[in-house]
Amino acid sequence: MLRHERVSMVAAVQRGVDGDPYGVTLAGVIRQLFVALEQRPLVKAFMLRDREVIGKLLRQAGVSESKVLSRATLVTYLEVLHARGLVRTDLSVSAQVNLIMATITGFLLAEPVLLDDRQGMVEDPADVVADVIGRALDPGRRLTAAEQRVVEQATREYVEQVVALSDAKYQSSLAVCTPARRRR
Amino acid sequence: MLRHERVSMVAAVQRGVDGDPYGVTLAGVIRQLFVALEQRPLVKAFMLRDREVIGKLLRQAGVSESKVLSRATLVTYLEVLHARGLVRTDLSVSAQVNLIMATITGFLLAEPVLLDDRQGMVEDPADVVADVIGRALDPGRRLTAAEQRVVEQATREYVEQVVALSDAKYQSSLAVCTPARRRR
Repeated sequence: MLRHERVSMVAAVQRGVDGDPYGVTLAGVIRQLFVALEQRPLVKAFMLRDREVIGKLLRQAGVSESKVLSRATLVTYLEVLHARGLVRTDLSVSAQVNLIMATITGFLLAEPVLLDDRQGMVEDPADVVADVIGRALDPGRRLTAAEQRVVEQATREYVEQVVALSDAKYQSSLAVCTPARRRR
Repeated sequence: MLRHERVSMVAAVQRGVDGDPYGVTLAGVIRQLFVALEQRPLVKAFMLRDREVIGKLLRQAGVSESKVLSRATLVTYLEVLHARGLVRTDLSVSAQVNLIMATITGFLLAEPVLLDDRQGMVEDPADVVADVIGRALDPGRRLTAAEQRVVEQATREYVEQVVALSDAKYQSSLAVCTPARRRR
């Protein structure tokens, strides 16, 4: 059930990223992730409310355990952008991946509490977190049209890998739940 | 004991901010906070390891419970900067305060786990979190020398308020722990 929801969420991110105001970029993917989470209270509750889950989140470096963000795929993606100077290069890929995971973790954990405060914030947290990460990795120059296409291509490949991971996990959970299928 | 450590930490932040590479700015204060936490494993452990503390952190919007960052003083500080355009003005003060607290929460929670990964990150997390928040609030223009002095002045006042809060809390805990003192 939860894994099915997660597959549907990742698919929504993939569909949404094409029309995202941040374009087909890391910031756009992150914005879509937060938008998708807002529409899936079950996945979000799982990631946030349960103490055990929070313990896991901490042990597993933020949301990596949920496979919404797998560290390995994020590293591969950032390495492509970093090697071509499409993100800043004064921070290592490791530091950038840690930065992304720490920031997303913070917004995921803090958001429900911050919204409860009813401090009259009109901004959508999805916009804010995408903006923070976009600025944090900005290469400090305008990308050429060709470079923008490289970013788009790398971003699509990243999202496809996340979708594939999420599908594989769902399939393996079906195999465990309905062993009859294995006999074929 | 813990409150004493906290007073000492806040005092270290106040001393350190003058020589911080980010200058007497919010980013400098945050960098000093993380540097000070690195030298105070007790305060840090209290903020991070204990499940109950983590639960409190979540309920209380990040680190506000610890009074290292009080929301009210942070709002006052940001209002001064926002009113004069010394931070970006396309995000409300509320959104900026939430952004700061979410980001700090994320780095505090994720950092020990991320470091445990031994991913060969050479960057100091204190530098990275200060840089992320500095970029996130950047007004997008060069400040004049007069404006930089306004930022410095507002930052010093903010740190003084945090010190005063931390001292008051320590004094009140002494009063509770050693009631004999009250008799004078």
